[in-house]
Amino acid sequence: MSSPLTNRNYPHVVIVGGGFGGLYAAKSLGSKPVRVTLIDKRNFHLFQPLLYQIATGSLSPGDIASPLRSVLRDYDNIEVLMDEVVDILPETNQLRLKEEPAPLSYDMLVLATGSTTHYFGHDDWAEKTNGLKTVEDALDMRRQVFNVFEAAEKERDPEKQAALLTFVIVGGGPTGVELAGALAELSNFSLPQDFKHIDCKKARILLVDMGSRILSAYPEDLSAKAAKTLEKLGVTVRSNTSVTNIEDSKIILSSNGKTEEIASGTILWAAGVKASPLGHMLADKLGCQVDRGGRVMVEPDLSVSGHPNIFVIGDLANYSHTADSKPLPGVAPVAIQEGRYVAHRILKKCANETCKPFKYQDKGSLAVIGILEAVGNLNNIHLSGFMAWLIWAVIHISYLIEFDNKLMVMFQWAWTLTTRRHGARLITGKGVYD
Amino acid sequence: MSSPLTNRNYPHVVIVGGGFGGLYAAKSLGSKPVRVTLIDKRNFHLFQPLLYQIATGSLSPGDIASPLRSVLRDYDNIEVLMDEVVDILPETNQLRLKEEPAPLSYDMLVLATGSTTHYFGHDDWAEKTNGLKTVEDALDMRRQVFNVFEAAEKERDPEKQAALLTFVIVGGGPTGVELAGALAELSNFSLPQDFKHIDCKKARILLVDMGSRILSAYPEDLSAKAAKTLEKLGVTVRSNTSVTNIEDSKIILSSNGKTEEIASGTILWAAGVKASPLGHMLADKLGCQVDRGGRVMVEPDLSVSGHPNIFVIGDLANYSHTADSKPLPGVAPVAIQEGRYVAHRILKKCANETCKPFKYQDKGSLAVIGILEAVGNLNNIHLSGFMAWLIWAVIHISYLIEFDNKLMVMFQWAWTLTTRRHGARLITGKGVYD
Repeated sequence: MSSPLTNRNYPHVVIVGGGFGGLYAAKSLGSKPVRVTLIDKRNFHLFQPLLYQIATGSLSPGDIASPLRSVLRDYDNIEVLMDEVVDILPETNQLRLKEEPAPLSYDMLVLATGSTTHYFGHDDWAEKTNGLKTVEDALDMRRQVFNVFEAAEKERDPEKQAALLTFVIVGGGPTGVELAGALAELSNFSLPQDFKHIDCKKARILLVDMGSRILSAYPEDLSAKAAKTLEKLGVTVRSNTSVTNIEDSKIILSSNGKTEEIASGTILWAAGVKASPLGHMLADKLGCQVDRGGRVMVEPDLSVSGHPNIFVIGDLANYSHTADSKPLPGVAPVAIQEGRYVAHRILKKCANETCKPFKYQDKGSLAVIGILEAVGNLNNIHLSGFMAWLIWAVIHISYLIEFDNKLMVMFQWAWTLTTRRHGARLITGKGVYD
Repeated sequence: MSSPLTNRNYPHVVIVGGGFGGLYAAKSLGSKPVRVTLIDKRNFHLFQPLLYQIATGSLSPGDIASPLRSVLRDYDNIEVLMDEVVDILPETNQLRLKEEPAPLSYDMLVLATGSTTHYFGHDDWAEKTNGLKTVEDALDMRRQVFNVFEAAEKERDPEKQAALLTFVIVGGGPTGVELAGALAELSNFSLPQDFKHIDCKKARILLVDMGSRILSAYPEDLSAKAAKTLEKLGVTVRSNTSVTNIEDSKIILSSNGKTEEIASGTILWAAGVKASPLGHMLADKLGCQVDRGGRVMVEPDLSVSGHPNIFVIGDLANYSHTADSKPLPGVAPVAIQEGRYVAHRILKKCANETCKPFKYQDKGSLAVIGILEAVGNLNNIHLSGFMAWLIWAVIHISYLIEFDNKLMVMFQWAWTLTTRRHGARLITGKGVYD
């Protein structure tokens, strides 16, 4: 069987990670004169920006995750491998995989393994809070949120009931803001009629942030708008407040030198991410520099210093346009543009042509606060309210459609009938790799 | 707060189980002069007839499960309690619950806890096969099915690869037939283009049944049609074949005195169900009779002999119209009609009126074989092919709509936006009650 995958004249590009960075790199190399192997430990791409909607029960995992094989099925020169990288051997241009005894050779390597939840030295807090990076995290969070409403419905002790209905969200970035807004919508509008013994509207939602304002990456006026909108939804926004300790069913906060203990059935952690462990492995093996969050410092063409055939992109990379500018944030548009650039860079390299350094085109950012409410900074135009939300919705729907996600289950069904594709075949659950 | 739930003039009806029987009983008692408590250990009603579509990746759990509270939200006289019955005290008309120290009193009790997978004395086979009764079963089966394709893609040994791509389905009832058809559709149409190293069409699918024909509850001509359609899809139908043993990654079959060992990565168990453990508890506590499958023998009005205020319905009940007729099968239409009848019976009882015995209106049965293919026996009219499938699809879609399931995620989204209901808030995953 002759296939571009076996054409030895084509250089072999190995991409590790099927998130936004890796997937867009692969797509951009589709049907080009290279052999591509995309490796991921999961069999699907996850549309992480909507993960909070799984956690709050609006969407199912199948709605925002697409099997990588399906997304890339039309490219003859791309194969997908479900496996995990356990070692890198730069001197022989090889990787070691968890499930494959023989090492895998590459001509060019793209590393895009993303980030994980960061507890800033308090790893024991992981068990006492719910993070939000994976489908399983989101399902755990969903279980937690709806379990406490069920428990509160049965609880007769008013104090315990109030604690059960207290939600503390740590971290006032976009994820924390989205979670706080979605929880407020749930308790104010979706649930009250369902429960006969508790008043869901009395649920207390606290959004806690160390900094002086939430959404600190946004302009000040939009931070203020977001805080005001959240307060209107019933969320208590506590800036300049840090977490001193988390114990079973309570959190200790510190603000202006005063500490406060809050009994809470649910503590959601949206305070930060760090690069995937691969970052530190690269530091060891390639002698490259990593920042405090474990991100690899990359060259202007996103390669690793001294290793022109190894590229790092997305949340795993620390890239700054100039020596004194801030590194690019860990958001989907950065990863997508880096993925596309690196594909372009690789093709130029194969043709022995030069290539300009990577330059991020910042088209702005949007954060959803509640249903029909968002804030956005688009080319320095500050938007808020319904208009910002509408733009957010259109952008997300169009990305989802691009990833072959079935926006409608009925259409999904009709789709299965006519194209015979099964979209929801995600391998999820604990123990997938254990 | 005055509510029908606190009106002491209303008798208290406790319904245990939120499947088809319990839910339809509750709905039929909605807004009637009774206080209703529906108890279920899960927070959702599951549309079990479509569970196989989760297992094969066509639908997500959220598509076929509805929060019980949502379904019943509009009835002021119904409360939902997420809990589990651990004991029954008929002498004081009380139940003991797992999570509530005080016993729960009832005036009338409806037991509808359904059935679980039956291994016919081989409980160790549970670990070596995948059953299909719960959302978690379906997600486990989905993980299993798609994992073996991934493993086969990486396997170089042709013998091991063939074993990985061999699926054995035990039990030729509707569930086994539906699973075999869906797997054949997957391997023939959905997956081939996704995998670059294996030929998914070579997947071997065996449907094994002890009896002389599959779909034994259907007329003979329809069984033959179903077998022929499955064979055309590439399924090997093995009737008159029993399972002698199941070991790790292999199954030993026996047919006409000959045994055969089949290496198989995936063994799906669709061979039978038994009543939920509550059946045996009732036998102990109420002195009632149970059949070999643990089902409670019930009176003509679905009550338990000697306990006119305790009713058993659905898969937990063994009901025959006459002493020599076969008991009604464990299917959704029986449970629904029994649920409605028992509600009617209870209301008559409250009004001190008499009531005719329960009579099942058999409207027929339908089994899906593949996409656009089904067989059906409707009022003794035998249907097959597309026509049968179309009727099946219309019936299932209309039931799903009745249960407030969002057939389209886009509409689901629009729905969330306008009605602010969150439909997918299922509490799933292992450890919910551990």
